[in-house]
Amino acid sequence: MNKIEHIGIAVSDLEASNRLFEKIFGAPPYKSEEVASEGVKTSFFMNGPNKIELLEATHPESPIAKFLEKKGEGIHHIAFDVTDIVAEIARLKSEGFTVLNETPKPGADNKLVAFLHPKGTNGVLIELCQERG
Amino acid sequence: MNKIEHIGIAVSDLEASNRLFEKIFGAPPYKSEEVASEGVKTSFFMNGPNKIELLEATHPESPIAKFLEKKGEGIHHIAFDVTDIVAEIARLKSEGFTVLNETPKPGADNKLVAFLHPKGTNGVLIELCQERG
Repeated sequence: MNKIEHIGIAVSDLEASNRLFEKIFGAPPYKSEEVASEGVKTSFFMNGPNKIELLEATHPESPIAKFLEKKGEGIHHIAFDVTDIVAEIARLKSEGFTVLNETPKPGADNKLVAFLHPKGTNGVLIELCQERG
Repeated sequence: MNKIEHIGIAVSDLEASNRLFEKIFGAPPYKSEEVASEGVKTSFFMNGPNKIELLEATHPESPIAKFLEKKGEGIHHIAFDVTDIVAEIARLKSEGFTVLNETPKPGADNKLVAFLHPKGTNGVLIELCQERG
C-alpha cells in the first residue's frame, strides 16, 4: 500500500460532473476512458500525487448504475497503489480479508486491479491497483 | 488543492477498526485524538503522502452517529490539503460552491478545516484543510 492512487466517485452525469470538478481542481480531466467490461465511462483528475476518478454507468446493469440506484451519487471506492498486486492479494487473504478478484483484472488507466469485499472493511470498497508494465 | 490529505471513514467500533486497518497498512495508527467539539474519537494511519482517519461517535448527537444511523459504516469525507484555506474558501464560493464554514475551524491533527456542502459536489462531503502554523 504505497498511497491512495485514486478515489472513485459515482456520478449521474459525467459531463456535468467534469465541469464541477474542473472548478474544484482548476484543471480539466487529463483522461477520459470507457471500460466496457465494467459498464462505465470514467474521467480522471490529477491532484498532486493522487487522482479522482468520476464514474458514470453506461448501462442499467453496470455496478455503478446499481450503486446510484441504491445510494445515490457519492464516493464509490478508494484505490490504493501497490507494487505487487499478486503478493498483496495473498497477504490480505492470509489476514482474513475477502478478495473479490483472486486474479487481478485489467482496469481503467492502465492498471491491474482487485477489490476487497466491503463487508470485511467497514463498508469501504477498497481497490488494489498496480500500474501495468 | 495540493493532494488528498486524508479520507475519513465512519466506524462503529474504533478499537476493532484500528485492528482491521492495521492489517491493511501493516502499521498501527500513528495518532489517536478526541475532538470534543465534533463529538468524535479519531485514529490516523499513514499511507505514503496520504492518511486514513477513522471516526467513531462519542455521543448520539455527533454528526458521525447520525451518518452511521442513516448510511452505516463507510467513507464519510475526503479532505484536500490546501496552502491558504481562507483564499480557497473565497475562490470556491466565487465558483458557486456552498461553504459550510465561512470561517475555518480547528479540526483534528492540528488543522484548520472547512467543509463544502455535499449537495453541490455530487454527494461528496469535501473538507479543505490547512496545517496550523
